[in-house]
Amino acid sequence: MNILKGACVIGQSGGPTSVINSSVLGCIESALASDNVTKVYAASHGIEGILNDELFDLTLEDPEELRKLKYTPSAFFGSCRYKIKDYTEDETDYLRILEIFKKYNIRYFFYNGGNDSMDTCKKVNEYMQSKGYECAVIGIPKTIDNDLALTDHCPGYGSAAKYVAQTFMEIKHDAEVYGKGSVTIVEVMGRNAGWLTAAATLADIKGMGPDLVYLPEVDFDLTSFMADVKNIYNKKKNVLVAVSEGIHDSKGNFIISSFTDADKNKDAFGHAKMGGLAVNLAEYIKKEIDASVRAIEFSILQRCAAHIASQTDIDEAYMAGKHAFLNAEAGVTGKMIGFLRDDSDQYKCIPTVVALEDVANVEKKIPRNWINEEGNGVLQPFIDYALPLIQGETCRQTKDGLTEFAQLKLKLA
Amino acid sequence: MNILKGACVIGQSGGPTSVINSSVLGCIESALASDNVTKVYAASHGIEGILNDELFDLTLEDPEELRKLKYTPSAFFGSCRYKIKDYTEDETDYLRILEIFKKYNIRYFFYNGGNDSMDTCKKVNEYMQSKGYECAVIGIPKTIDNDLALTDHCPGYGSAAKYVAQTFMEIKHDAEVYGKGSVTIVEVMGRNAGWLTAAATLADIKGMGPDLVYLPEVDFDLTSFMADVKNIYNKKKNVLVAVSEGIHDSKGNFIISSFTDADKNKDAFGHAKMGGLAVNLAEYIKKEIDASVRAIEFSILQRCAAHIASQTDIDEAYMAGKHAFLNAEAGVTGKMIGFLRDDSDQYKCIPTVVALEDVANVEKKIPRNWINEEGNGVLQPFIDYALPLIQGETCRQTKDGLTEFAQLKLKLA
Repeated sequence: MNILKGACVIGQSGGPTSVINSSVLGCIESALASDNVTKVYAASHGIEGILNDELFDLTLEDPEELRKLKYTPSAFFGSCRYKIKDYTEDETDYLRILEIFKKYNIRYFFYNGGNDSMDTCKKVNEYMQSKGYECAVIGIPKTIDNDLALTDHCPGYGSAAKYVAQTFMEIKHDAEVYGKGSVTIVEVMGRNAGWLTAAATLADIKGMGPDLVYLPEVDFDLTSFMADVKNIYNKKKNVLVAVSEGIHDSKGNFIISSFTDADKNKDAFGHAKMGGLAVNLAEYIKKEIDASVRAIEFSILQRCAAHIASQTDIDEAYMAGKHAFLNAEAGVTGKMIGFLRDDSDQYKCIPTVVALEDVANVEKKIPRNWINEEGNGVLQPFIDYALPLIQGETCRQTKDGLTEFAQLKLKLA
Repeated sequence: MNILKGACVIGQSGGPTSVINSSVLGCIESALASDNVTKVYAASHGIEGILNDELFDLTLEDPEELRKLKYTPSAFFGSCRYKIKDYTEDETDYLRILEIFKKYNIRYFFYNGGNDSMDTCKKVNEYMQSKGYECAVIGIPKTIDNDLALTDHCPGYGSAAKYVAQTFMEIKHDAEVYGKGSVTIVEVMGRNAGWLTAAATLADIKGMGPDLVYLPEVDFDLTSFMADVKNIYNKKKNVLVAVSEGIHDSKGNFIISSFTDADKNKDAFGHAKMGGLAVNLAEYIKKEIDASVRAIEFSILQRCAAHIASQTDIDEAYMAGKHAFLNAEAGVTGKMIGFLRDDSDQYKCIPTVVALEDVANVEKKIPRNWINEEGNGVLQPFIDYALPLIQGETCRQTKDGLTEFAQLKLKLA
């Protein structure tokens, strides 16, 4: 592809993270500085903002305020869970996207999201190519679930992992404070991958990790679970359990579905609605163990607690956004930014590009040999993998004791 | 009272906070440095540790490691919810306490807790005086509820308030990320006082506070609540609500009791078991509003998230412990350390002493004229009161990306 001249648009999609805006900043700061870019827009609520012709003109924003995006959690320009159809089935959305791209002379399109979003990105790229409309399309990964293929890890994961590890240490102190026995069940996000739940075990390096860890990578059995909990309880009197929201039985049915109608509440991508697992497991335990049993659900705190974000993650997220633009400007399209790890000397993260079609709709899980045989704990290779990702305290600015988040004008184009 | 020579013991009681160990440190560092103190002990699980003759000898600990208590959350030496009877009714516990005090020649007794603990403290002091056993007894306040009388505020509150305010800002970003309407109900601790829930409104100074705030200081009415939520929803499409766990109807019945059997599950002090309110209110709202409705319960995170503690609170907690010892050494007994505020120039917190009998079992609430007329928000005087208390980021040490908490030997005497 030739070097393109025109406008740039970036959209955010899927569940937000603490550092997704750092990626946007990396991309738009490079775009704003480029002679090839005439205008820089952010789509309001991802692809929906393009379909609805709602683009924010970022050239009107104060660069100083934009810079705070690096430390501002959640998708600042709004997110969406819009599933775009195949254009061979229904071209409506694509015709509209092309119309908007032409209207604003958009030649750079960046989409910041997880595997569903990479599917959107891939389809838009294919359509533009099929129509001969020259536009560089690059995906910028983000997900606390860390389940994207072909990248060592995903921006957003390190910060959520740091939140989980730090909070487990704090919970362990609190949960064991009374002389009586206690069982604490903490539910962690991650859907079909256990990466984030496993991060609780990083607290082990301080001797404060969970006693038991249940991940979607291993079939869950309620009887074995009860036996595990009773075993630890009898030995230690206090039990701390990390459980992934997405654990399932040997038939693949989510455990949460045996308690609630999770499977009936699905989003646009057909994903079951999660949450409420810990409280149900706690009720179950109460029937069998006469102890103080508490359920804790991190809920959205684990993906938005920017005050405990990993500076490593913040910087890598920025780098992903920056390299998305640099690659696009160099003529690359149909790719997602990925990370390679260089462990030869000390941990180093190197940006690369991977094909969108190899990433879209694929889920990467924890290797089974990183999980113990009993399926209730993780092993050293996981710790070695995850620990570098949570390093560094956030350099956020505070005023009046609270973080200074970005406050933008958000003027529509 | 003459200057006493002998051993010192400190106990922790009630629900822990992020800074309760900072108070212990303030007290024991002064005690360890004093020529009048022969030994420094911490009781395992508060008064229970005295009754069970389980005292940790703190003179055996590494001072460097002890110093980390300043940044270590939760009652490090264990807490309890043991209600001591009046000694006129049943002298058993008191005879045992006196026996242990004599065994270790304890002449300094410090009890670190909330209003129930101040009651224990008061009774122990009265009993020792009635028996002519010379021992200085001083209460060191702690509570995230901030409901202790005769003190401007309580150690523990500032850190919990900072957690609540910072987290509300982050939740607000996350909750409004999708284009669709949303209602987010966040349940905050505080029992019969609204101080901690009201702290959510500190996020208002960044324009990111809750839309509605419900406190136990105002009778709660489900119909008015629904009308309030619908009103904001129709205006803004996204509604963020802070609700205190302890809200009650005009007859004084906890709202949570109308959903669960909270009143049947009581602790040793006859307090109903809290929690689960937000999720029940959310279910109720779902029937009336067709939006994404989410319930978030901060649970114990708000009292143990030491990584976001207020350095002001950490320092004041330390000061409370230090002054407890200094007063005891000067011959004061039967008192609790309180705080006075000097606002004349800039915020300054000055330690003082108040009589235990004036504090025990009394609850201080938010003045009604600090709450708006509708009873769904707080006014500027509350912001002016609370804002100085959340200032300063914690100076905690980190290693490997996680806080360095104290690791003590805990050798029994």
